[in-house]
Amino acid sequence: MQRNRVRLAAARENIATGAISGAVGTFANIDPYVEEYVCSKMGLKPEPVSTQVIPRDRHAEYFCVLAVIASSMERIAIEVRHMQRTEVLEAEEFFSKGQKGSSAMPHKRNPILSENLTGQARYIRSLCIPALENVALWHERDISHSSVERYIAPDATVALDFSLRRLNGLVKNLVVYPENMQRNLNQMKGLVFSQKILLDLTQAGVSREDSYRLVQRNAMKVWEQGADFQTELLADREVAGALGEARIREAFDLNYHLKHVDTIFKRVFRE
Amino acid sequence: MQRNRVRLAAARENIATGAISGAVGTFANIDPYVEEYVCSKMGLKPEPVSTQVIPRDRHAEYFCVLAVIASSMERIAIEVRHMQRTEVLEAEEFFSKGQKGSSAMPHKRNPILSENLTGQARYIRSLCIPALENVALWHERDISHSSVERYIAPDATVALDFSLRRLNGLVKNLVVYPENMQRNLNQMKGLVFSQKILLDLTQAGVSREDSYRLVQRNAMKVWEQGADFQTELLADREVAGALGEARIREAFDLNYHLKHVDTIFKRVFRE
Amino acid sequence: MQRNRVRLAAARENIATGAISGAVGTFANIDPYVEEYVCSKMGLKPEPVSTQVIPRDRHAEYFCVLAVIASSMERIAIEVRHMQRTEVLEAEEFFSKGQKGSSAMPHKRNPILSENLTGQARYIRSLCIPALENVALWHERDISHSSVERYIAPDATVALDFSLRRLNGLVKNLVVYPENMQRNLNQMKGLVFSQKILLDLTQAGVSREDSYRLVQRNAMKVWEQGADFQTELLADREVAGALGEARIREAFDLNYHLKHVDTIFKRVFRE
Amino acid sequence: MQRNRVRLAAARENIATGAISGAVGTFANIDPYVEEYVCSKMGLKPEPVSTQVIPRDRHAEYFCVLAVIASSMERIAIEVRHMQRTEVLEAEEFFSKGQKGSSAMPHKRNPILSENLTGQARYIRSLCIPALENVALWHERDISHSSVERYIAPDATVALDFSLRRLNGLVKNLVVYPENMQRNLNQMKGLVFSQKILLDLTQAGVSREDSYRLVQRNAMKVWEQGADFQTELLADREVAGALGEARIREAFDLNYHLKHVDTIFKRVFRE
Repeated sequence: MQRNRVRLAAARENIATGAISGAVGTFANIDPYVEEYVCSKMGLKPEPVSTQVIPRDRHAEYFCVLAVIASSMERIAIEVRHMQRTEVLEAEEFFSKGQKGSSAMPHKRNPILSENLTGQARYIRSLCIPALENVALWHERDISHSSVERYIAPDATVALDFSLRRLNGLVKNLVVYPENMQRNLNQMKGLVFSQKILLDLTQAGVSREDSYRLVQRNAMKVWEQGADFQTELLADREVAGALGEARIREAFDLNYHLKHVDTIFKRVFRE
Repeated sequence: MQRNRVRLAAARENIATGAISGAVGTFANIDPYVEEYVCSKMGLKPEPVSTQVIPRDRHAEYFCVLAVIASSMERIAIEVRHMQRTEVLEAEEFFSKGQKGSSAMPHKRNPILSENLTGQARYIRSLCIPALENVALWHERDISHSSVERYIAPDATVALDFSLRRLNGLVKNLVVYPENMQRNLNQMKGLVFSQKILLDLTQAGVSREDSYRLVQRNAMKVWEQGADFQTELLADREVAGALGEARIREAFDLNYHLKHVDTIFKRVFRE
Repeated sequence: MQRNRVRLAAARENIATGAISGAVGTFANIDPYVEEYVCSKMGLKPEPVSTQVIPRDRHAEYFCVLAVIASSMERIAIEVRHMQRTEVLEAEEFFSKGQKGSSAMPHKRNPILSENLTGQARYIRSLCIPALENVALWHERDISHSSVERYIAPDATVALDFSLRRLNGLVKNLVVYPENMQRNLNQMKGLVFSQKILLDLTQAGVSREDSYRLVQRNAMKVWEQGADFQTELLADREVAGALGEARIREAFDLNYHLKHVDTIFKRVFRE
Repeated sequence: MQRNRVRLAAARENIATGAISGAVGTFANIDPYVEEYVCSKMGLKPEPVSTQVIPRDRHAEYFCVLAVIASSMERIAIEVRHMQRTEVLEAEEFFSKGQKGSSAMPHKRNPILSENLTGQARYIRSLCIPALENVALWHERDISHSSVERYIAPDATVALDFSLRRLNGLVKNLVVYPENMQRNLNQMKGLVFSQKILLDLTQAGVSREDSYRLVQRNAMKVWEQGADFQTELLADREVAGALGEARIREAFDLNYHLKHVDTIFKRVFRE
């Protein structure tokens, strides 16, 4: 979203030009000074080469930026929809006390806001196509772009504004279930730590190929028979022989995976 | 447009299904007979496999057909815009007596209706994209298609209805200038008949390659120096030797090109 | 997919026309009989009104149909991707014995085929846009459609052919886990039967509003505290009073929801 | 095109990030220093928050910029196609001496390069849609974007590169016919100067409404009967009374319209 702000600021800048250059852009009956004066009063830059209209690549850029923002918004909405699945339930859109759920199924809580935003994204995104087709006007200008822009300029802008406000509320009020995140990790019975075991084996001198085979044969027992990964590894002579019990146990430490979280946060939020 | 009617009728047929099959489409709490009964009263067919919703490939087809119709409409609009060019002027949108032209240029008559329709086509066409993205709903259904359809179902349908009515008026009132068509043909100084000369030469025994060379050398004098094509051919010994004066003059008969006009009309309008 | 076959057959029919009508479609130098004769030999219909080219709305229809098919394919792919989630795991793409999983995580089995098909659908779908823009050629024809079709005609057709074959293999070899489906249903602790209770209450004379409230208060205990739905209902005096124990127990019968499965199968597969 | 260079440079900058952060972006098994070191060697910036992949809004921006450039290119191509119309002929694509024209019509010179570029623009433009759909990947990543990018990354980039080189040659070798431009202006029989007369009348004290009426009644004689505009105005008592002969003649000076040409050139090319 930080990148999207930069894109939107650039598009706004590029679209903020004005033209008072006459019916075909020659300044025949009006001095360029008038254009400069009026534009500066309105916070616009004079369009360097206008015809009867401002060149439409500027507007195409604007609608493309809205399309990128809408797609970024959809990325967050899809994430929420996945997390709110009954089988996953790591987060949920806020659901107020009095609020009714599904009319047929009283227990049901659908991620209605993020489903709505997914659809909004589809709509807003598609409008970059007619904006791009608007660029190639005939000669000094035709008015074919006008009917298009009367639809899409308000519709795309207002729909995205509405959607971003909705997204803002959604994220702000999102109910997060850390204990379910932990439960889902545990549900894998240790398999999420397999890569660490793989690397430890190679560092203990086992060949990459053999390490992979050793890990996979134990992983498959977990996957297919519901065994516990650590227990299997400790019981596997080859693995236990190479790593020893302590090192195997150490490999199942979640903190090992979280040690650089602050680095990532600092990259985005600085300070 | 005859093809488009067939497409639209098929899409309308495909979209006219109904579902009363319960919240997940299992008919658990309602007998399929109810669905059949209600649908038949409403002129719908029961959806063979509904979930909570009707499958969205039906609606995608509908919006694609609107997109094809809009593009066909644009084809006519572009033709009118070309014919109305000042330098061509073979036809013009109707311009009523009292009507003002451009505010700056009182003589100017722009093809405003067809330029408007060109833009409408761009807008309507683009809406098939979100309709196609709506097909892949999650599981039994999600509501992501709903916000999209609230925009595009009325907008695309109404915009196309408006546009087709406007197109109808435009074509009905189109002012056609046959004498300008003739003038534009004449402006080519006979060059439009070059293919007939080319074929006559080959049938008179001149090789294809030589025929092309003979025609091109005379055509270029017309193109570059404004000469008259027939005069040049008559003065060209090789051409005149091969064809004779009468046959050269005959090749410039416009009716030769019109002899199958009725065949084409009959193909489209029967009778 | 049955609907898609019908659409594809119609598009194929509409695209199978031929034209041998001369450089501007007037049959000036060639008799319409030749067109008819050649077309019939090639299994084509003569194009009723050709210019130098066949009208491009026919081809636009074809690419739109490919777009609808691609989107239908994506619908299946998305379903598989959801079912293959670790937390859901109701079905899996076939994974052969020797096949390696992720290089870093030996236990990991991604739905790589359906993810691939999701992307293919995006690509194929987008190509209907330039096909639609191709319809409005200038005058008797221009060749702007030609470069577009050299890309998209083979690319969209071949990509969809490849994708449908891949989809076919994916579905044929799909590994389905009915016991996981049952487990996921059970995980809801009876909540999936809430609608039946709701209806039974109303039929036992409880108002719709009260019924909803009664079901919701028990459903919420299940959802928030992990209680068992049936147990809660039996312990709820109002509910038990209205329905009696037997009727409550009966409402938890899965077969109630499956009684019309055969009806639906018959609708699609007849016999 | 200057604006497009800026857009392309920004997109290139935004897309030039790298990630070596492990299979889920946590740097669990690799220190962030490695990422920084390798990226700096490769002229990339480290991706601030990577998952298994780089966020796809960066790539969507890139394809949108290609789409804007392609549309700008189409704008030039459409201009050339219009100028090369037989009835207009103010410019022509270069046509080498030996080059054959149409096989059927030896005199015919089509704007084949600009028609080709118009088609290329349609194709390249459409590919921003799947790039935008690629942004919303599932969770840490899925590979659905991969098949899309294998098509569109080389295709859009190479097609635009080819097209821009072709456009460059087209513009460099464009044959311009200034005398035909003058002829087309003259063909309007002075009507192009109507706005100056309109303004002169108002400055001579005639009301705006009356001025418009006076100009229009003379313009219509030119338009409908082929009269000469200046002659008509001189013969119109009201107009001649208000402006006098000299001022009417002065209003037909082409240089009046060209006086700010250098201003516009300086705006674009500076110096």
